[in-house]
Amino acid sequence: MNKTTEANIFDNEHDYLHNVAVDNVIFGYHDKELKVLLQQPFSVHKWTVTGGYIKKTESIEQAARRVAFDRTGLKNLYFEQFRAFGNPQRVIDSGFSAKHISEISGINVSPDHWVFDYFVSVAFYTLTEFSKVSVKKGQLEADCKWWPVNELPQMMFDHKLIVKEALKALRIHIAHYPIGYELLPEKFTLPEIHALYETILEKSLDDRNFTRKLIANGIVVKLKETKNIGAHRSPYLYKFDLEKYNEGLKDGDVLVF
Amino acid sequence: MNKTTEANIFDNEHDYLHNVAVDNVIFGYHDKELKVLLQQPFSVHKWTVTGGYIKKTESIEQAARRVAFDRTGLKNLYFEQFRAFGNPQRVIDSGFSAKHISEISGINVSPDHWVFDYFVSVAFYTLTEFSKVSVKKGQLEADCKWWPVNELPQMMFDHKLIVKEALKALRIHIAHYPIGYELLPEKFTLPEIHALYETILEKSLDDRNFTRKLIANGIVVKLKETKNIGAHRSPYLYKFDLEKYNEGLKDGDVLVF
Repeated sequence: MNKTTEANIFDNEHDYLHNVAVDNVIFGYHDKELKVLLQQPFSVHKWTVTGGYIKKTESIEQAARRVAFDRTGLKNLYFEQFRAFGNPQRVIDSGFSAKHISEISGINVSPDHWVFDYFVSVAFYTLTEFSKVSVKKGQLEADCKWWPVNELPQMMFDHKLIVKEALKALRIHIAHYPIGYELLPEKFTLPEIHALYETILEKSLDDRNFTRKLIANGIVVKLKETKNIGAHRSPYLYKFDLEKYNEGLKDGDVLVF
Repeated sequence: MNKTTEANIFDNEHDYLHNVAVDNVIFGYHDKELKVLLQQPFSVHKWTVTGGYIKKTESIEQAARRVAFDRTGLKNLYFEQFRAFGNPQRVIDSGFSAKHISEISGINVSPDHWVFDYFVSVAFYTLTEFSKVSVKKGQLEADCKWWPVNELPQMMFDHKLIVKEALKALRIHIAHYPIGYELLPEKFTLPEIHALYETILEKSLDDRNFTRKLIANGIVVKLKETKNIGAHRSPYLYKFDLEKYNEGLKDGDVLVF
């Protein structure tokens, strides 16, 4: 069989950092739905967020982008590190796992291999338009797919907590930084951006107040064009002012709705 | 010589996680001044934030509290993890360091010891009243003291960035969570709490607006007592409603000033 990146870590122990890895909470938005990309190891009924090991030659951010690219094929995802998770309970049953990995990959893995040690996970989240992504599962996974954030399956270790904390961080984040450029069409209506914020925040936002704040900081600008969405209905279109958008990403600002 | 915790790590390699450690940005507030606790290794002209290694038996939070206790003697500090830092450039000159540590501690340390590997730092910040703290320097440090956050000395690696990011996280944090209980007297005046927020945020806050928001969420309550601070000046005293304060710490709320 071909050895993939996943398989190589069992041989190349000196190429990777021990005791610390990255996990990615990949959120996907599409048409009022917020989902998260999870994977399921072979013969295990529980799911995990996607993640991987850190090479000695790369930063933690580079590691997170590399392993996200492996699953989604996307290269320029906006990544935000939100928390690290680490405690001695975060270990898997190495006897069970070593046996399984050996069976699946054909590589003989010892139960005292370093991959079964206590690992601190540095966790990142990202947000993408999930209809754009073609998911690729890893060699050791039975499945990898999108789950609605409010209907998560049974998850391994503290991975449900990791998703919950990522969601909390995302919600605080969008109170200070602009979002939406990768998630909405280039030109969008107010109801479209309003639905995006309401879906992520999981609460309804006063229409007029929302629009006022959105326009006030100049990140969103009204166009002269309208969108024809049916008889007598042609709302104005809006777009992002990219310069202000990128400034906002850099500096942070208070956009609390 | 007595072997302290710091010295023991050179012997007990199997007791600690490799490639990952904790750093603490310990902020101190007192009377309109915001400072940070830094330490200076022997024979090095640069300073670092305080930090340490993680035992295999403890969580990253327990490690952060243990190493903070070693420096400050304080046990119940409110800790907030804000970011991890990790890239291959974060390594020290192990030849120089091994020689120095051997000279200072009397323990023979090899330049290829695991403590000189690439380390991911999981960073926490905390905020305390610095007049309450008696600082204890470590065995390998020439000095450990408070520095004003705006007058930092030369610092090692990316430690200036770590302080800067901690400050940014602290400022976002106080827009969502209450602060002040450990930093102000039990009963305080509005100018006292106003000065606390202005010092941390490093900007002036409109007096009336600040007071209105502070009272509105019920975390701060007005007392019937006044404080006598001179001829014809006796401002009302306020205190925290501890139940609401703790709820706010748990749930987060928008307190943006």
